[in-house]
Amino acid sequence: MTGRRPLVFGAFTGVGLPNHGPGLWWHPDAGRIDHNDLSAWQELARSLERARFDLLFLADAVGSYDVYRGSRDQTIRDAIGLPSNDPSVLISALAASTEQLGLAFTSATLQEHPFNLARKLSTLDHFTRGRVGWNIVTSYAENASRNFGLDGLRDHDERYLQAEEYVEVTYRLWEDSWEDDAVLRDGERRIWADPARVHPIEHHGRWYDVAGPHLPDPSPQRTPLLFQAGSSEAGRAFAARHAEGVFLIAFDPAGAERHVRDVRRRAVAAGRRADDLLFLQGLWFVVGSTEEEARRREGELLEWVSLEGVLADLSGKLGIDLAGIELDRPLGDLQVAGVQGIVESLRASRPDGGGTFRDLVLHLLSARVVGTPEQIADELERWRAAGIDGINVMDVPAHGAFHDFAEHVAPVLRERGLMQREYRPGTLREKLFGRGPRLPETHPARAGARSRREVVA
Amino acid sequence: MTGRRPLVFGAFTGVGLPNHGPGLWWHPDAGRIDHNDLSAWQELARSLERARFDLLFLADAVGSYDVYRGSRDQTIRDAIGLPSNDPSVLISALAASTEQLGLAFTSATLQEHPFNLARKLSTLDHFTRGRVGWNIVTSYAENASRNFGLDGLRDHDERYLQAEEYVEVTYRLWEDSWEDDAVLRDGERRIWADPARVHPIEHHGRWYDVAGPHLPDPSPQRTPLLFQAGSSEAGRAFAARHAEGVFLIAFDPAGAERHVRDVRRRAVAAGRRADDLLFLQGLWFVVGSTEEEARRREGELLEWVSLEGVLADLSGKLGIDLAGIELDRPLGDLQVAGVQGIVESLRASRPDGGGTFRDLVLHLLSARVVGTPEQIADELERWRAAGIDGINVMDVPAHGAFHDFAEHVAPVLRERGLMQREYRPGTLREKLFGRGPRLPETHPARAGARSRREVVA
Repeated sequence: MTGRRPLVFGAFTGVGLPNHGPGLWWHPDAGRIDHNDLSAWQELARSLERARFDLLFLADAVGSYDVYRGSRDQTIRDAIGLPSNDPSVLISALAASTEQLGLAFTSATLQEHPFNLARKLSTLDHFTRGRVGWNIVTSYAENASRNFGLDGLRDHDERYLQAEEYVEVTYRLWEDSWEDDAVLRDGERRIWADPARVHPIEHHGRWYDVAGPHLPDPSPQRTPLLFQAGSSEAGRAFAARHAEGVFLIAFDPAGAERHVRDVRRRAVAAGRRADDLLFLQGLWFVVGSTEEEARRREGELLEWVSLEGVLADLSGKLGIDLAGIELDRPLGDLQVAGVQGIVESLRASRPDGGGTFRDLVLHLLSARVVGTPEQIADELERWRAAGIDGINVMDVPAHGAFHDFAEHVAPVLRERGLMQREYRPGTLREKLFGRGPRLPETHPARAGARSRREVVA
Repeated sequence: MTGRRPLVFGAFTGVGLPNHGPGLWWHPDAGRIDHNDLSAWQELARSLERARFDLLFLADAVGSYDVYRGSRDQTIRDAIGLPSNDPSVLISALAASTEQLGLAFTSATLQEHPFNLARKLSTLDHFTRGRVGWNIVTSYAENASRNFGLDGLRDHDERYLQAEEYVEVTYRLWEDSWEDDAVLRDGERRIWADPARVHPIEHHGRWYDVAGPHLPDPSPQRTPLLFQAGSSEAGRAFAARHAEGVFLIAFDPAGAERHVRDVRRRAVAAGRRADDLLFLQGLWFVVGSTEEEARRREGELLEWVSLEGVLADLSGKLGIDLAGIELDRPLGDLQVAGVQGIVESLRASRPDGGGTFRDLVLHLLSARVVGTPEQIADELERWRAAGIDGINVMDVPAHGAFHDFAEHVAPVLRERGLMQREYRPGTLREKLFGRGPRLPETHPARAGARSRREVVA
């Protein structure tokens, strides 16, 4: 299925300081950072479109970490997760400054009622002419929960059950509420829409009661393109059932291959087609005109990274304060809950079986591809051979990374057929899948709509 | 205070079909209606800015009416309240296409958690460079409640208590969380912000528990310009305490004068200054080159209005099905709960003491100003003399109303000093009040911050 299609390319960042690589905000290659300036965002979107990126992906979180050293101090010093603006309200300005670029953002099931979120996404699907995507986030840090009145984290699997109901509500609003031919605009008969074809949904579930009808009329994609990034057991099951784009951050192609194969298998078991899902791997790129130059730049970047920032970020993600571990401590018998598999594989990867906690921390910054544009293209071929459909280019250091990639790497990728030369027509879903603007019939949102219609009929 | 300052002018509409004047969407003067087209909205905002409107005000509701004839049919036929897009996600595109126009939208305390709403508004205050306003809505229709999992309407006064806590949470996030000098951007010391100057809020109240800190760094206005429109006892008390802009829809200058005097008196009693509040009256304008032409156009418009649409809208607003009342029924001894005062005054206004239910329905469409540009200017002088600070120009018929007003009425108003010739510099708050970008110290959000600092110190 990946066959001769180019890879899909996303630019992966957030509407605050750079999400990946704490401390790099003041690196000379970071480019201008003004997260509060609308025109800077519009210029970024235009430059991504000129380079034929498929989409801009705006990551998000609605809380900040306070686990490292039992405080939020390092998080604030390194601007990790705050300041952070609401990505959803940026989309319309980016839609106005571009024609083709996909525009996706994260919204957690925690942060907004599904009636409001469904309406917001329909509005944006209209305003972008069908270019919007939603990254469904179901798990979140403790502070995020406490910002929304929940006393600490709820059980992981319980959150996925709630997320199942959450997306069910949005599907019903998007797919069931307005029939295709409901809008008449019939001036002679003075009927804007046909009341017989606009329906309440009357969803009454365990967490949500939503009457409907949906307030916007049907948008080009109806359901926006759905992304998800879960890697836990429940997360993979959710992605297999719902996601059209799956984000992963594997450390090597072999790890990606296992993940992709597992989720595709689950998707097929759930009645979907293997090619209903696209898998996007997140990668850092460090480019040089020679391999030596690229390695030297990598070394410089890693020296600029705030190690305490990385530790604050990791501590928050794992929910464990990593402050007690010396950076020079040999990996030897180190135990770190949550990443022990990575500790083992890193240890195994060293000829001397060695390495230190510092090596682990820098490794966990995510997979890097370092080299000349040609070497990078070779490496991307390997990821593609592992079953990856696309790459999320990460914002390291900041938006400078996208400019570097567009200027130096993209031309070689286009030459090799690894990156598109022109956008396909239509909505984001049509561009990425080459099929229609709507969810395929194999998706549970459509299958659900069918069975609900049958019950009514 | 209204002294020699021009009146403030807002353009009042919603991101769906025209809010006011059901059935007028297909009137030849309505202009192009494409609520789903971003470029049409950007063009509207640019044309309002060219005409020196102070602000575009996007009304909203998160439910639709199903009271009239016990169904939603008429509401859907006349497109009353649905289709309706989310106004908050339109703002950044309008910010990108204008430089000076204020951009305000409605968000009900029902629809979004205050942590999310506060973040959204800070983001938009950054993106608009301080031009954003929030219309705080506390009361809502039954369907809106049922879209958000509430079983019917809660008690009116109870909702205002909840709204008090809601705004308190947002004030603390906007005013208390980040100190003015928290952001350092100090590359040498590798400190983006000073942890000692970014604070959680740890709000623990009856309805909300919000930890903080606020995620965006301080925006130009911090707290967006605050609008409110309550006319009930609790609504006036709320406006007097919190609003900087008060919307009203009085039927004549005398009614406006009573309302304005009452709310200003309450505001002063609450420790605010009388000129901390601006009052904006909503009006329809029907312009003609002669009075006769204007009257003829008014008659045409009223004939195009869908009377059943008006009844569906009114029935929803009042929560009473008005379908049983014959349109030709004389006002005589008619009793209509919720608008009986208007029935009486309308009856009293007729020399014959007569009139029918149809007259009442058309009257309730809101106050109209009909005449030549000069007559309209005279009438606005009368509203100003009654204590009104500004006018919301209503979208009847649709956006054509704004173009008509800008082309024919605005030049005469500018000539008479009733409408600004140029924007004042700075944020929306500076433009409208001619003082600083922040809330005045007399506002409870600032007073609260002071007392909270004293408790800590």
